[in-house]
Order: sequence, then C-alpha cells, then structure tokens
Amino acid sequence: MTADDPNATIAAAIARMPLPDEAAAAAARDRQAQLTKPAGSLGRLEDLAIQIAGTTGRPRPRLPRKAVVVMAADHGVTVEGVSAYPADVTPQMVANFLRGGAAINALAGVAGARVVVVDMGVATEMPAIPGLVSARVGPGTRNMAVGPAMTRDEAAQAVATGIRIAEGLVADGVDVVATGDMGIGNTTASATITAVITGTSPTLVTGRGTGLDDDALAHKAAIVERAIAANRPDAGDGLGVLAAVGGFEIGGLAGVIIGAASLRVPVLLDGFISGAAALIAATLCPGVRPHLVASHRSVEQGHRAALAWLGLVPLLDLDLRLGEGTGAALAMPIVDGALAALDEMATFAEAAVAGPLEA
Amino acid sequence: MTADDPNATIAAAIARMPLPDEAAAAAARDRQAQLTKPAGSLGRLEDLAIQIAGTTGRPRPRLPRKAVVVMAADHGVTVEGVSAYPADVTPQMVANFLRGGAAINALAGVAGARVVVVDMGVATEMPAIPGLVSARVGPGTRNMAVGPAMTRDEAAQAVATGIRIAEGLVADGVDVVATGDMGIGNTTASATITAVITGTSPTLVTGRGTGLDDDALAHKAAIVERAIAANRPDAGDGLGVLAAVGGFEIGGLAGVIIGAASLRVPVLLDGFISGAAALIAATLCPGVRPHLVASHRSVEQGHRAALAWLGLVPLLDLDLRLGEGTGAALAMPIVDGALAALDEMATFAEAAVAGPLEA
Repeated sequence: MTADDPNATIAAAIARMPLPDEAAAAAARDRQAQLTKPAGSLGRLEDLAIQIAGTTGRPRPRLPRKAVVVMAADHGVTVEGVSAYPADVTPQMVANFLRGGAAINALAGVAGARVVVVDMGVATEMPAIPGLVSARVGPGTRNMAVGPAMTRDEAAQAVATGIRIAEGLVADGVDVVATGDMGIGNTTASATITAVITGTSPTLVTGRGTGLDDDALAHKAAIVERAIAANRPDAGDGLGVLAAVGGFEIGGLAGVIIGAASLRVPVLLDGFISGAAALIAATLCPGVRPHLVASHRSVEQGHRAALAWLGLVPLLDLDLRLGEGTGAALAMPIVDGALAALDEMATFAEAAVAGPLEA
Repeated sequence: MTADDPNATIAAAIARMPLPDEAAAAAARDRQAQLTKPAGSLGRLEDLAIQIAGTTGRPRPRLPRKAVVVMAADHGVTVEGVSAYPADVTPQMVANFLRGGAAINALAGVAGARVVVVDMGVATEMPAIPGLVSARVGPGTRNMAVGPAMTRDEAAQAVATGIRIAEGLVADGVDVVATGDMGIGNTTASATITAVITGTSPTLVTGRGTGLDDDALAHKAAIVERAIAANRPDAGDGLGVLAAVGGFEIGGLAGVIIGAASLRVPVLLDGFISGAAALIAATLCPGVRPHLVASHRSVEQGHRAALAWLGLVPLLDLDLRLGEGTGAALAMPIVDGALAALDEMATFAEAAVAGPLEA
C-alpha cells in the first residue's frame, strides 16, 4: 500500500465516478431491437447488456478478463457467541482459498475468473502464502457490542485499500470485478450495517449465518441491537457506519466497488456481506449504483432489505448462503451470455428473417 | 433414419429407463457434508449435483461435452392467426441457427455446447444446409383446431426420431443434453398439451408467445379450446395427446428427453415448448422425471402449470420467452458450477479447517 492519504484516495474515486454513458446504452438498446428474436424475448439479459454498455461506455461490450476479490477479516463481536463456527476458521479458509480448495475456486474456475485473496485484517497474522495480498488494517475489529468496531481512520484506510486494489486490477486489464468475503462473524456486522442504513428492524435483517438455531438467532439479533445502541451511528455517514459496526473486509469491499465503478468496470455483487459493503459504498457515493449488478439473493434475510434499498433485483436465487463470491462467480456466465447475445447475434436484415406481422 | 419400427424404438427406450443410482447419489450427499463450507450453504447447487450423481451413476460427475438439440417444425394451426410472426420465420431461423446468428448460438458458445439443428417438419422443405439434420415427419402439422395435428403413426415417428438422435449423441460422447425449439405457432400447441395433461384451463396456460396483444391472446385461448373440443384427447395417452394437439418438434423433443435419460444422460429442459415435450415424455414414461432439470421459468404463463405437474423447480427466472434452448444453455454453467464444487472442493479434513462449534 502507498502512504497516500486514505481520505484523498476516497475523495478522488468519488469525484471521478461516471454517469452511465447514455450514447453507448442507447446504441445497445437500439441493437437489441434489431436482433433476430422477438423484441424483449431475452428478458433480463437485454437490460443487463444495456446496463453494462452504459457502465463501460461501449455499445457491444465483452468482459473476458474477470476477477473475484475475496476479502477476509475477523470480527471482535465473535466474543459474543454470534457464529456457529470458531474464528480460527477465517485464516484456515484463507489458506484454503490460496490452495484452490474452496467453493469460490471451483466456481471461479468455471467462470474463467481469477481469485484475488486479500487479508484485510485476520485476527492471527497469516504466514506469507504465495498469492495472498496482505492489506491488514488491524488484527480484526473490536467488539461492536460495546463500542466502535474500528476508528474512523481505520474505516477510511479499509475503503482506500479496496479502491487501490480495484485500481490495480483495472490497470492489469481486468474487465469485470466480483466481490467476495470471508470472516467469521461478518453476517452480524452486515446485519447491523443493513439495519442502520436501510432503517430496518434488527430482527428483520438478522439471519442464521453459517447455521444458528432459533435461540442463537435471537441472541444474535439482540447483539445487533446492542451494537446499534452502543454506537448510535448516523445512517447518512458511510464511514461512520463502517467504523461503528462494520468490518475491515466490508470496508475493503466498499472500496473495491467504488474503485472499479469509478473506472467504468462493472461490479458483480455477491450476497449479504457484499450487499452491506454496497450499502456503505452507495452511502459514500450514490453515483455508484447504476454500475452494480446483484448476482444473487442470499438466504440471509437481511439481504432483501439491502437489495431493496439499493434498487437491485438479483439475477439468481439458488438458496446460497456461503459468501466467498460464490454467487457472483455463478452469475458471470449469465453476464457473458447477455453480452454474447448482444454482440454476436445477427440482425433481422443480416439474416433475412421476417419481422412481426402488421397488427 | 433407420427403418426400425418407431413403436419398438420407443418401447425399448422406456424399458431401459433407469432409476437414479442411489449409491452414487448417497456418496455425493455424503461428500457434500464433508466439503469446506457450512452444511447446505451451496443451496440448490448441492441438490443439483446429487441429482446428477444419481442420473449418471457417478459420485463426482462432470459433464464437459454438451449439446443443445434445437428441433424445428411448422404448425397448421397458424392459419388461425395465433402468432405475431409469419410461418416463414421458422425456416429462416433454422438457416440463422446454422449460420451461427441466433441467440442460441451465442449462449451455447458461452456454455461450451454444440448446437444440433434438426428439421422435424418445416412447412417448406429446407435446402441441404451443412449441419442440418433432416428428420422430417411431414411438411408441418395439420390445423388442430379442426382435427388431429398428425396421425398416431406420425406421433410415434417423431418421438422415435428424437430417441435415435439422443442415442447418436450419447454414442458420440455427449454428457448432457439440452432441449430447444423453433416453430411459429408452437406456443399454441404447447398450451394445448399443457391444458390437456395438467388439467388446467386453456385461459390459464395460454400466453402471448412472440408478442400478442390482448385481443389476439383471447383469440389464441379460444383456438386452444377449439383444438381440445375438436380432438378430445385422453390426458393419459402421451402419443394420443401429441397426435391430436402436438407438433413434430415437440414429439421429437419428447424423444430426445426419453432417449438421453434412458442412457443416464441428464436432460436440461428449456422453457414452455420443452416443458410440453416433457409432459408428453413423462406421460409416456413416468420414470424419466428424476433425470430432468428445469433450467428456467419462461414468461409464458403455461410453463408454471407444466413445471408444477412435473414437480420441477427451475434454476433461473430471467423473464426469457425465446425458446431455441436459450434458457437451458444459460443454465449449463450453473450445472457445471454445482459439479465443480462437488468434485474439486477440499474436505474439512484435507484443508485442516475447523468444523462448527459444539452446540
């Protein structure tokens, strides 16, 4: 990481956030109407391709070079007993990602995407495993149930780190970025962020995470309430919410989202944790929204509130609740299909196919 | 096509229809529980992989060699004015498939699938275009609004032809078969099949096809009613329903479904027309059902009734209404992802990742 001022990095990315390119989107929309299919018959694929034309500024975009950024960190709130798994699993899974043994490795392989694994602040410092990007903000957050999870400076550092990682990937030629996460305890942080920013009751945004029973679920919702009461974050202050009840990986992903979108690279959001990161990103920079694609709807019930607030309708609904970027990787071939249809199909004129009968 | 008796071909395929391999499915289910993810966190991907283990008889199946079989035919009922497009579009689109200019070509390309284009009975005989499989039962069906669409012998010939095509693909090494269709008028035939076999009112299964307005939709539903009244098909007689109100491509696809499943090759169903073909297939051979995967839910409202009767929940719901196998091609990478996760992921033991905390 450079020694640049994190707040300056964030401000610069927000300042360059583009509007969708209306000319490219209009050209894509016009082409959809000429391709050899009944108008609108490819449904959401048509709108998706038009959206990506707007983000990229290209009327017939393709996105062959793909990256899934999986950010990992630990959460002080795990001392409250909010997860079915021990916090040790965070670094163990980071090692698993780097050996290629996790679900995201298998799914990214199918999608043709590289997996970029980032330590944003695992509790126990990781050994220097080849491929691991070390961008630690600290050794896990503090317990948000009794005070802020991190300082405001740490929150800015996390977001700025994500922006710089996105900038590096785009400089390296990456065409589309997907978000992924690992962090025992991070559905509790995401539930709290979602409750605060969307104004939804903690009980409605708290889910079973990796597998809580009913009693543990009620306890987790109570911890979310305690975290809000202990910190009273301002819903309109994205860095403030992140500092109070967030996580280092969530801040990093908010930065990846802002950084990629600011450089006209579409962002495929994974599930609940990525949704919480997008809430932070869109609070910091509302102009990021038109560049986001919701890949799937998570089983975690809070994800619905996050998607509704973001105005996003997910592409997939396959009862996933794993994170890691798995849903986003699954959606990549759907995006490829939408773009291949727009780019490769013949027009009615080219194919000498008759159009609809006169009404 | 061989001169074999079509009824003998059908009977042989039905006789060899396997039950799912319970040992392979159990091994896949057991492995899912050991992989480095919370139990069940890959949701429908886990069940899908277990299902395909059962169909293929392999505990860790992969399906690299893929085919989309697109069957085309014309429909006599188009003289009743049930489609927004002229019947000429059927052969024009067949030519477009063979030149690679259609949506299915683009989407099959992303999925890594070959497209097999079959003329099951286009009204105007097609020129011998390289790649076109000519398996014509006749020059389009007759008008089902006034009598049977085809004879019972023609119905058997259509189904037997599909079985033989599936047998050929499997002999050629194909691991997974997707169904696709082209035929102006074929949503009317599919609506009628769906009404008859599922016992649903014609108005509830008739949709806008390629783009009818409200008046034309009401007219189309009235034609479906007339076809049923004119033919009074027996819902339990699959060949009888096909002969009365079906289409040559629908019969062919029913044969592809039975043929592939009978040889332990999973079948990815496309939308409404493929659903109607599956209704015929499952009426002829109920044992085909566990080998079917519903790739997507079509905008065509009758598809819901077909899927419900078949007991299938679609993987995708993207507002598609194109046919051609487009939804099935889009679902292929989802299937690949499910199988890659099952096959490639490390177990908790292999990766030295801790399991859940004791409750």
